[in-house]
Amino acid sequence: MDSKDDKRDVSCSSPVCVHNPHLDALKDDILYHFSLGTATHDLPAMFGDVKYVCVGGSPWRMKSFTEFIAAELGMENPKSEYPNICAGTDRYAMYRVGPVLSVSHGMGIPSIAIMLHELIKLLHHAQCKDVTIIRIGTSGGIGLEPGTVVVTKQSVDATFLPKFEQVILGKPVVRNTDLDQSLAEELLQCSKELNQFETVIGNTMCTLDFYEGQARLDGAFCSYSEKDKQDYLNKASEAGVCNIEMESSVFASMCKLSGLRAAVVCVTLLDRLKGDQLKSSHEVLHSFQQRPQKLVGYFIKKQLKAKAILN
Amino acid sequence: MDSKDDKRDVSCSSPVCVHNPHLDALKDDILYHFSLGTATHDLPAMFGDVKYVCVGGSPWRMKSFTEFIAAELGMENPKSEYPNICAGTDRYAMYRVGPVLSVSHGMGIPSIAIMLHELIKLLHHAQCKDVTIIRIGTSGGIGLEPGTVVVTKQSVDATFLPKFEQVILGKPVVRNTDLDQSLAEELLQCSKELNQFETVIGNTMCTLDFYEGQARLDGAFCSYSEKDKQDYLNKASEAGVCNIEMESSVFASMCKLSGLRAAVVCVTLLDRLKGDQLKSSHEVLHSFQQRPQKLVGYFIKKQLKAKAILN
Repeated sequence: MDSKDDKRDVSCSSPVCVHNPHLDALKDDILYHFSLGTATHDLPAMFGDVKYVCVGGSPWRMKSFTEFIAAELGMENPKSEYPNICAGTDRYAMYRVGPVLSVSHGMGIPSIAIMLHELIKLLHHAQCKDVTIIRIGTSGGIGLEPGTVVVTKQSVDATFLPKFEQVILGKPVVRNTDLDQSLAEELLQCSKELNQFETVIGNTMCTLDFYEGQARLDGAFCSYSEKDKQDYLNKASEAGVCNIEMESSVFASMCKLSGLRAAVVCVTLLDRLKGDQLKSSHEVLHSFQQRPQKLVGYFIKKQLKAKAILN
Repeated sequence: MDSKDDKRDVSCSSPVCVHNPHLDALKDDILYHFSLGTATHDLPAMFGDVKYVCVGGSPWRMKSFTEFIAAELGMENPKSEYPNICAGTDRYAMYRVGPVLSVSHGMGIPSIAIMLHELIKLLHHAQCKDVTIIRIGTSGGIGLEPGTVVVTKQSVDATFLPKFEQVILGKPVVRNTDLDQSLAEELLQCSKELNQFETVIGNTMCTLDFYEGQARLDGAFCSYSEKDKQDYLNKASEAGVCNIEMESSVFASMCKLSGLRAAVVCVTLLDRLKGDQLKSSHEVLHSFQQRPQKLVGYFIKKQLKAKAILN
């Protein structure tokens, strides 16, 4: 599979597509929530050779991922300084080491969607080619041992359907949430080689709310019973849902529209069939959160090694 | 109006309500995204006398609001140090000075909803009474001079209806987005007294997306024309919409459910009928963003003065 992908990289390079005829008419483009822009920054020089973009909710985690990937790739900055490229704003944080860009996206569909609109435009303006994008996140598991990593097969909504509804001019437009299946399989294979934790491929439910939207019993409001919760989560499980998070559907749909090869890799912090609150120690939760980073770090290192052999 | 409200404060104190029978069964309650909890923190001692909560998207802005309000109330810390109460996490930032709590909520409905679930539980556990909560934010205006402050009358959805749809166990539940009209009027009166910038009361459209969801022509994707955009925004204007942002509907519905006296005060950074990109200088945008802070600071100072006379 590696050789096939590498051949594709070499023979048929794939740009990052925008679908917006109005962009050409803009004299310059301000990426407001990144505090970057085409008039103020030389985006091709800054980002033109980016091949991997990793995104996650927490700015701290995306900084630590950058430090981790720098060490993995032997690209450590001797002073261990990785400046925040979006230092002019506190909306998102962005770091870079070698061909790997690391960007935070906050929590929830609207927050990651703003970031992705501007990231896709950034990669487009920078004339990036053959970009792989991976969301590394945390999630609640269904029937899995906490700490299990889930690579998303399909992102499904709260009724377990693989679709994302975008409201445009007040009307719903339904979009596909397909992710790259070959990339998911490659990541699963990497986890087997790494052999440090359990990884599965399964469906991921993406919700608009963490408490009532995920049938939690511990929010400020709850109008349903423990049995209602269990029935709902069991139905989700029967539909192939392995974990629940809050960004995968719009991530999948926007990456597909822009031609980005995309995957979602989330660790499960707890088994929602057994509880709602995160009671594991800080240390245990921290080590769980490093698992998607380790898996994706291994994958990128393996890919870069294979390319170095080919080139 | 002040004397009536103050009488209410004194004679009929109003708690912050949760609506969740399961909470009583919890041995302790972990407010995960605040890195706080009932077992690890003495919430009544830390927060019991909070009377005003101000929330906004940006952590930097909420810190600067705390510094501003400290100066306004003559409660400056001589070292100007306002520690982040949620320093154990990077999900939200929280600061406090006197009776005023300042909390960031990130961007979008899901992000503010997580924060509000945990804030409402925090205020409930802390046994707070008579709490007023105000969102101070930024927005796009419709037909208003940039820099105009809008106090929200009703928060409406992308079809201009005053409702918020919460998905629970996979089914939509429609909730009311009423805000406190007397509080909105008090804020308008404060702006007149302050006499530094224009303030209006109007409807606020709350969307799930910043680009396609708000009819912008400058996202990564755009399938509609300039005329489609103008038609949509003009229809919004005819429905009384003065500005567009991304959090007011769930804010209004959750505050109403929990008995919090709530208002939304957003400055308009641009007139969406004239453009989509934020082209004003950093200085101008920064001064616009301080307007909701100034207005709410004036309001809190006035209220506290009136109470000092009464008590």
